[in-house]
Amino acid sequence: MSNIDLLGRRKFIAGLGIAAGAAMVAPAMAVSEKADGVKWDKEVEIVIIGSGFAGLAAAIEATKHGAKDVHIFEKMSYFGGNSAINGGLFAAPGTPMQKKEGVEDSVDRMVNDQLLSGRGIADEGLLRHVASHAVEALQMTLDAGSEYHPYLQQLGGHSVARTYQTSVSCGAGITQPLYKECKRIGVNTHNRSKFEGFLVGNKGEVVGVKMRQNYHFGEDQPGKVLNIRAKRGVIMATGGFAQNVDLRMAQDPTLTADVGCTNAPGATGEGMFEMFRLGAIPVHLAHIQSGPWASPDEGGFGYVSNYSIFNLPHSIAVSRTTGKRFMNEIADRKTRADAELSNRDEKGNPVPPLLISSFKDSKAHPNTEKVIKYNVGWKFESLEELATHFGVPLAGLKAQIAEYNGYVKTGEDKQFGKDMTLAKNKMIEAPFTVVRLWPKVHYCQGGVKVNTKAEVTDSFTGKSITGLYAAGEVCGGIHGVSRLGSCSIPECMVMGMTAARSLMNV
Amino acid sequence: MSNIDLLGRRKFIAGLGIAAGAAMVAPAMAVSEKADGVKWDKEVEIVIIGSGFAGLAAAIEATKHGAKDVHIFEKMSYFGGNSAINGGLFAAPGTPMQKKEGVEDSVDRMVNDQLLSGRGIADEGLLRHVASHAVEALQMTLDAGSEYHPYLQQLGGHSVARTYQTSVSCGAGITQPLYKECKRIGVNTHNRSKFEGFLVGNKGEVVGVKMRQNYHFGEDQPGKVLNIRAKRGVIMATGGFAQNVDLRMAQDPTLTADVGCTNAPGATGEGMFEMFRLGAIPVHLAHIQSGPWASPDEGGFGYVSNYSIFNLPHSIAVSRTTGKRFMNEIADRKTRADAELSNRDEKGNPVPPLLISSFKDSKAHPNTEKVIKYNVGWKFESLEELATHFGVPLAGLKAQIAEYNGYVKTGEDKQFGKDMTLAKNKMIEAPFTVVRLWPKVHYCQGGVKVNTKAEVTDSFTGKSITGLYAAGEVCGGIHGVSRLGSCSIPECMVMGMTAARSLMNV
Repeated sequence: MSNIDLLGRRKFIAGLGIAAGAAMVAPAMAVSEKADGVKWDKEVEIVIIGSGFAGLAAAIEATKHGAKDVHIFEKMSYFGGNSAINGGLFAAPGTPMQKKEGVEDSVDRMVNDQLLSGRGIADEGLLRHVASHAVEALQMTLDAGSEYHPYLQQLGGHSVARTYQTSVSCGAGITQPLYKECKRIGVNTHNRSKFEGFLVGNKGEVVGVKMRQNYHFGEDQPGKVLNIRAKRGVIMATGGFAQNVDLRMAQDPTLTADVGCTNAPGATGEGMFEMFRLGAIPVHLAHIQSGPWASPDEGGFGYVSNYSIFNLPHSIAVSRTTGKRFMNEIADRKTRADAELSNRDEKGNPVPPLLISSFKDSKAHPNTEKVIKYNVGWKFESLEELATHFGVPLAGLKAQIAEYNGYVKTGEDKQFGKDMTLAKNKMIEAPFTVVRLWPKVHYCQGGVKVNTKAEVTDSFTGKSITGLYAAGEVCGGIHGVSRLGSCSIPECMVMGMTAARSLMNV
Repeated sequence: MSNIDLLGRRKFIAGLGIAAGAAMVAPAMAVSEKADGVKWDKEVEIVIIGSGFAGLAAAIEATKHGAKDVHIFEKMSYFGGNSAINGGLFAAPGTPMQKKEGVEDSVDRMVNDQLLSGRGIADEGLLRHVASHAVEALQMTLDAGSEYHPYLQQLGGHSVARTYQTSVSCGAGITQPLYKECKRIGVNTHNRSKFEGFLVGNKGEVVGVKMRQNYHFGEDQPGKVLNIRAKRGVIMATGGFAQNVDLRMAQDPTLTADVGCTNAPGATGEGMFEMFRLGAIPVHLAHIQSGPWASPDEGGFGYVSNYSIFNLPHSIAVSRTTGKRFMNEIADRKTRADAELSNRDEKGNPVPPLLISSFKDSKAHPNTEKVIKYNVGWKFESLEELATHFGVPLAGLKAQIAEYNGYVKTGEDKQFGKDMTLAKNKMIEAPFTVVRLWPKVHYCQGGVKVNTKAEVTDSFTGKSITGLYAAGEVCGGIHGVSRLGSCSIPECMVMGMTAARSLMNV
C-alpha cells in the first residue's frame, strides 16, 4: 500500500471566505426576471430541471396522469446527475423481499429510525409521506426494468434489513431504466441546457424559466438563452451543492477542496440558490453529511463505499494505533463519520482506521475482487501479516478480534451495542480482507423548505410559491442532522412523483 | 410555588409546516426592485436599518469618520431593538478591569474559547477580527456614558473572567447612552419606519431602500412607502429571527410557539430574508441557541437570567428527581441547554432542575431581592425545607452538597470538571436561594455570510454585493454551533463599526 498523502479535515481554517477562496464552480448567473413583456421562445406544459431520480420520476408520473408535453432539462452532457453514481440503495418498509426474508417492518418503524438519526430536527410529516409511498416508488423502478440483488441489506441506523440495492450496485441501475422509460413514453429530454433563472408573473408566480443552450459545464460560453414558458409549472430537481467548495465551506470551514467528495461534478447548487432569491426558505444548510464508508485510497464514491456498506454488519473497524474498535460499525452516518475523524496522530494528522472482514464473507460482494485488484483493499493470510503491514499492535488486535467473536456467538455486542443479527455465524477469521476508511462529503441535508405537496414555501407570506415545485436533495429539512443511508432514493422518487401529482391536480 | 403548566420541547412534532402553522409574524413584503425610473423621495448619505448595538455603533463610527447625513431607521416605536433587553454582558480580552484583577487574557485565548464552543464550524477570521477590536468597542460605550459593575464575571465556556456587565444589568445600559450620543452628534433617527426591500441598480448594486412610514408593528397598515436613496450605502443591522415562530420551526420543529423566548418581539428576520432574496448566502440558520440560565417561572429574559449568570460559578444545578448534579454549571450554552432539557419524567414531561446557591453569596447580585419578591426564586432556611418544597430526595441532595463543598475546598470538581476559581471559599450552605432552570430561545447563530469588512457575499459571484453591509445577529457563521455568552455585544459593535469604516473607506 502506498502511503498516500491523505488530506483530512483541519480543525480550523484561518481567514477563509468565499471572496478570498478559489474561483466559483458556478459562473455568475443572471437572476430571475419579471415575465412582463418577455418574448417566449417556447411554450411547454411542464418544465423539470434536473435528470436525477427526482426529475425522472416526476416526468414519468406526470405523463402517467395525462401530461402530454413534459420537458426535462439537464445541464451536463449526460443524463442521471449525481443519482447515477451512488450506491443504488433503496429503503422501503413492507416490501416483497422483506416478506420473503421474514423481516417485520412498517412505515412507523422506518420513520422512527430516521427521526433518531435526525436528532430531533427532522420533519416527521415529510418522512412519513415518503415512507408511505416508498413501495410505490420502488415499483416504478421495477416497472421500468431496474434489477436488484436478491437479498436485503441492513444499513447503519436502520433497525431492520429494508434496503434493496441495484444489481449493478449503482444508482445508474435506476436512472438508466427510468430515462429509457421517459423516452418510451414521449418525455422530451434536453442535455447541455442550463437553468439561468425564473420568469416571474405579476403576483410573484413562476411562469417560466430561462435556459442556456449548448452549455458546457465549467466553461464560460455564449450559448443562447431561451425563455421557456411552463404552462402548468416548474419542478426543480437540481440536487445538492456538495461539489461547490466555496458554498460548502461557508457552512463548514473544514470542508475544504482537499476533503474528498463522492458527488458528480454538477452538484453545485445554483438551482437552490436561485430559489432562495425567489423567496424560498433555506433550511438546515449547515448539515452536510460525510459518507463514513468511503476510502481515502481512491477518488469519489469508488469501489470501497459499496464494499464497506455490505460488509460493515459482519466486520470490525479498528484504530491503527491500538487495534481496538472505536465505534458501532452500523451506527448512523454522522456517528460513524465523527468517530472515524477522531482517528489522528499526536499532531492531528489523520490515521484512517481499518475495516477488517473475513475474506470468506466479504467475497459475497461483487466489489471485493475489484477492491483487491485496484489496490484499494488488501487480502492477508494471517493476522500477523495484516498487523505488520499496517503497523497495528498485534496483541491488541488479537484480543479485540477474540472479544468480538465472542459477541458473534452470544449475539450481544458489549462494546458498542451493535445489532449482531446480520453478523450471525460470521466470525472474523483468516484470511482477511481489509480496507481503510475516511469520510467523504456525500449529501446536503439542507435546501429549500417544501411541504408534502412538494410546494416551495415563501419566507414572507408563509404560502406556497405558485407554479414552483421542488423534489430531491435540493430540498432541506426532511432528514434533520443526519440522513440514514438508502433513504435518499425513496425521498427523491416519492417527492418527484408528488410534485407531478400536485401539478396534475391528482 | 405554583405548579405552572410548563410547556417544554416535544421530541417530535407531527405534520408541522409553515403553511399549516399560525399566521406569520411578519406581514407579506414587497420584494426588492430595480431602481431604474424610481422617483426618489429622499436622498441621504448612509442608511442604517435597525437601532440595536450594531446600528448605533455604525452611526457613531461613520460620523466620527466624517459622514454628515447618517439615518437610522427602526421599525418599532422605541429604539434599541433586542439589544436593549438582554443582560448587557460585554466580553473583551485585555481590558483595564482584567489588569486590575490580575486576569491574564489575550485575543488568542478569547478566540480559542469561542472556537471550542463553535464545535469546529465557527469562522476564525471573523472571531479574531471582533476580539481584536473589542476593547475599542467597549471604549465607545464608556465614552458615550455606559456604566459597568465594578467586577468581572467568568461566563460559561470562557476560560477566564473577561465579561463586563452594565450596572443596570441590561443592554439598555449601552443602547441608551449610544442613542443619546447619536442624537448629540447629529445622527438622524426614525422610528415606526419599516424596511420593505432594496432598490437595486443595473449591476445588482444596492442604491437605496423602500421604507414604510408610520408603521405599527404587528398591524396591517397603509403607511406611505418612501424610496430613499443611500449615496454611500446601506448597513443592515436588523437582528435575528428568534421571535418568528414559523421560521424558527422551519429550522427546528421543537421550537414551537409554546417554547419561551428571551427576545424583543421585533426579532422577526425580514431584513435577513430580504438579503437572501438579493443573493446573500444563508449560513448556519439551523443553529438556534437557547439560553440555559432562563427560568420557566417568568416570561422572556426576566429577572432570573441575570441572577443565574452571576450565580452559576458558585452554585449547583441539581435534578429534582435525584438531588444530583447533572452538568458543569459553567459549560458552554449548548452543553448546558441540552443537559437541562434531559430533565424529564417518565412520560417525557419537563422537570426543570434547581439552581441552588447560598443566600449569602447570591445576595451580592442586585436581582436576588426581585427574584424572591416576584416568586420566581425562593429562600429556604434549611435543606429539609428546600427538599420538601420541591420534592427532592433529601439524602441524595445532602450527599451532593457535601461532595461539591469538598470540591470548593480542593478547587477540583471531580464530577464535571468545572472551573472552581470563582467558587473559591463559597460553600453551598443555609440559608439557600433557589431558582428553576429551563432553556429559552435566545439567539440565532445563523444569518447572511459577511467578511471582515462587513460586506455581504453573493452566492453566485462569490463577490461582495456593492452598496450593502451587514452587522450583528443578522449575520451568520461567526460563532458556529454555539455562541458563548457576552460575545454578541462585542460582535455587534465591532461589526457595526467595521461596516461604517468600510463605507467611509477608512
